[in-house]
Amino acid sequence: MTVSSETFARPIILGIVGDSAAGKTTLSRGIVQILGSEHASVLCTDDYHRHNRQQRKELGITPLNPECNYLDMMAQHLRLLRAGEPILKPHYEHKLGDFGPPQYIVPHPFLIVEGLLGFYWQEMRNAYSVRVFLNPPEELRRRWKVRRDSTQRGYSEQEVLRELDIRELDSAAYIRPQRQHADIEVSFFPDLSPRSRQNDDAHLNVRLTLHGTLPHPDLSQIIEEDQSGCVRSTLGRENGRAVEYLEIDGAIPDEPAAALERGILDHLDECGAASPAELGQYSDSQVWHSHPLALTQLLLVYHLLRARQRDEVEV
Amino acid sequence: MTVSSETFARPIILGIVGDSAAGKTTLSRGIVQILGSEHASVLCTDDYHRHNRQQRKELGITPLNPECNYLDMMAQHLRLLRAGEPILKPHYEHKLGDFGPPQYIVPHPFLIVEGLLGFYWQEMRNAYSVRVFLNPPEELRRRWKVRRDSTQRGYSEQEVLRELDIRELDSAAYIRPQRQHADIEVSFFPDLSPRSRQNDDAHLNVRLTLHGTLPHPDLSQIIEEDQSGCVRSTLGRENGRAVEYLEIDGAIPDEPAAALERGILDHLDECGAASPAELGQYSDSQVWHSHPLALTQLLLVYHLLRARQRDEVEV
Repeated sequence: MTVSSETFARPIILGIVGDSAAGKTTLSRGIVQILGSEHASVLCTDDYHRHNRQQRKELGITPLNPECNYLDMMAQHLRLLRAGEPILKPHYEHKLGDFGPPQYIVPHPFLIVEGLLGFYWQEMRNAYSVRVFLNPPEELRRRWKVRRDSTQRGYSEQEVLRELDIRELDSAAYIRPQRQHADIEVSFFPDLSPRSRQNDDAHLNVRLTLHGTLPHPDLSQIIEEDQSGCVRSTLGRENGRAVEYLEIDGAIPDEPAAALERGILDHLDECGAASPAELGQYSDSQVWHSHPLALTQLLLVYHLLRARQRDEVEV
Repeated sequence: MTVSSETFARPIILGIVGDSAAGKTTLSRGIVQILGSEHASVLCTDDYHRHNRQQRKELGITPLNPECNYLDMMAQHLRLLRAGEPILKPHYEHKLGDFGPPQYIVPHPFLIVEGLLGFYWQEMRNAYSVRVFLNPPEELRRRWKVRRDSTQRGYSEQEVLRELDIRELDSAAYIRPQRQHADIEVSFFPDLSPRSRQNDDAHLNVRLTLHGTLPHPDLSQIIEEDQSGCVRSTLGRENGRAVEYLEIDGAIPDEPAAALERGILDHLDECGAASPAELGQYSDSQVWHSHPLALTQLLLVYHLLRARQRDEVEV
C-alpha cells in the first residue's frame, strides 16, 4: 500500500489495550505490515514499570497495578508524541525482568501503542485516534500466556499459571474495566460448532464490538449478500449505548473473506489510500494466516487512515 | 534560611555549565544547603549520554561531543521541568559507565541543573533563570579531575591524564564556547602572590565576571570601605559588552568576608527572604570552608530568589 511519504507533524496513534498475552503484538504486527514499517511503529507501555521484576516480588505488587507504573509519564509521553515530538522512553527488558538503556523514539506518521493500562487515564485516552480493547476468553488467553512466557520469558508452565492466579484480582480491578473506553472491542474465540473442522489459532472466530464513538464502514450490503453464513452483523446495547456486533468465523472460505476485504478497501479508497492491488502483503507475511485476524487488521487500518484524513482537515 | 514552603508551579532553574571536574558539584552543594534540600535539588545532564562508556570507546567519541548526547531530550525535559511537570529522567552511573533504571523527578521550587552542555542550544538556555559558567584554570581543573576520577570513578591517574588529552579538542570546540551564554562566570584560581601563606583548595581566590544580562546587587560601598585589600571590583569589556569583575581573595579575613555577606544579605531581604541570623548553615556544612566559595554561593542564591520574585509578579 502506498501511504504518502510526507511526514505529518501530528502522528495518528492507535491504542491497543488488553491483559497480558491477549494478542496485542499479533494484532499490531499485521497493521505495521499493511502500513509499512517506514510509516508505522509499535511502542509498548510495559516499559513504564516503576519497579523491576525483583522489586515487584519484594513489594508484592503486580505490573497490572497502576501504582506499579509511571502512568503520568506515560500520559506525558503520549501527549508529546501526539504533538510530533520525540521522546526518551524507558526500556524494560522482559527477558531480564529489568531496565535497559532508554530508547530515543521519533514518532512515525502512525504509532501503535500497546499495553496493559493505556486507557487508564483520560489524559492518555485523549492521545489516541483509535482505541482497541483485546478481550479473548480467559481460557484462550491463559493458554497463550503459558505458551509465550514459558518459551520466550524464561518461566516454567507452573510459574505462569501461579502468576496468572496472583494477577487475577488486579486484572479484574484495573485491566478489564478499561474495556468501556474502546472504540472497538476485539474478541478472538474458538469455533466450537460441529461445523468447525479445525481448532487452532488460525481458525479462531472474531467478534468485533463496534462502538458509536467512531463511524464504522458500512458493510451491510456485503453481509446481506453473503452465502457462507460465516459473517454476522447484529445490533445490541451495552451500558446504555447502541453497539454493532460483527462476527467473522475462522471457517470463512476465501471468496467471502475477499468480498469483505474489498468492501473495506472500497472505503479505504475514500481515505485517499492506494489501489487494492498493493495490499497483498498484509496476508502473506502473517506468522499464521487467519481471515478474521487479517480483516480485523484491515478494519483498523481503515480507521487510522480516516483519522489522518480528519487531522489534515483540522490543520 | 526560611524559604516559603509554598510550592510554585514554575520552578526556578539555575544552570551550571563547565568542563568535567570544573567544580560544578561543589558549587551546587552549598546552594542546596542554603536553600534547604526540601526546596532545592540538583540534576545532572550527564545522564543524557547517548552511549555508555564501552560504546563511546568503540565509536571514538567523547561525552563532550553534542552528538554523544540526546540534547533535544535534555531541552525537552528542561522545558517540562520549568513548566512544573515531572519527568522520567535517564540515569547514567558514572561508577559503572552504564545506564541504570530511569529516575522519576518531581521538580522542587529551585532546581540546579549542572552539566557539560547545558547552554549548547537556545531552547535549553531559555529554561534557566540564572546561568553560571565555571571556568577554573586548566591546570587546577586537571588536578581536580585526576583526584576525583582516580578516587571515585575507578580510573588510574595515567588513564585520567590520557583521557584529558583525548578530550581537549572537544573541550575547546563545544564546552568552552558556552562561556558566552553565562550571566556569571566563576573562576576559582590559586593565589600566587607572596602574601598568600596557604595554597590549597580552601584558599583559592575567586574571580566573578558579572554580565549585564542580570542586575547584580550593588556592593560598591562595602568594597570602597574595605581595608583588607582582598576584594576588588573593576569594569571591563568582553565581546562588545560591558562587564564587572569582582575578585575575592582566599586570604580574605573573616571580618571583611562577613561585611560582604551582610551586603548580599541586605539585598536578599529585598527578595522577601528570611533574617540573616538563619543563614549560618551555609558555611558550617561545607566540606572545605572557603570565603570566596561561600560568598559566590550566596550571590547565586540572591539571584535565584530575585528570579522567583520576578516569576511571582508575572503570574
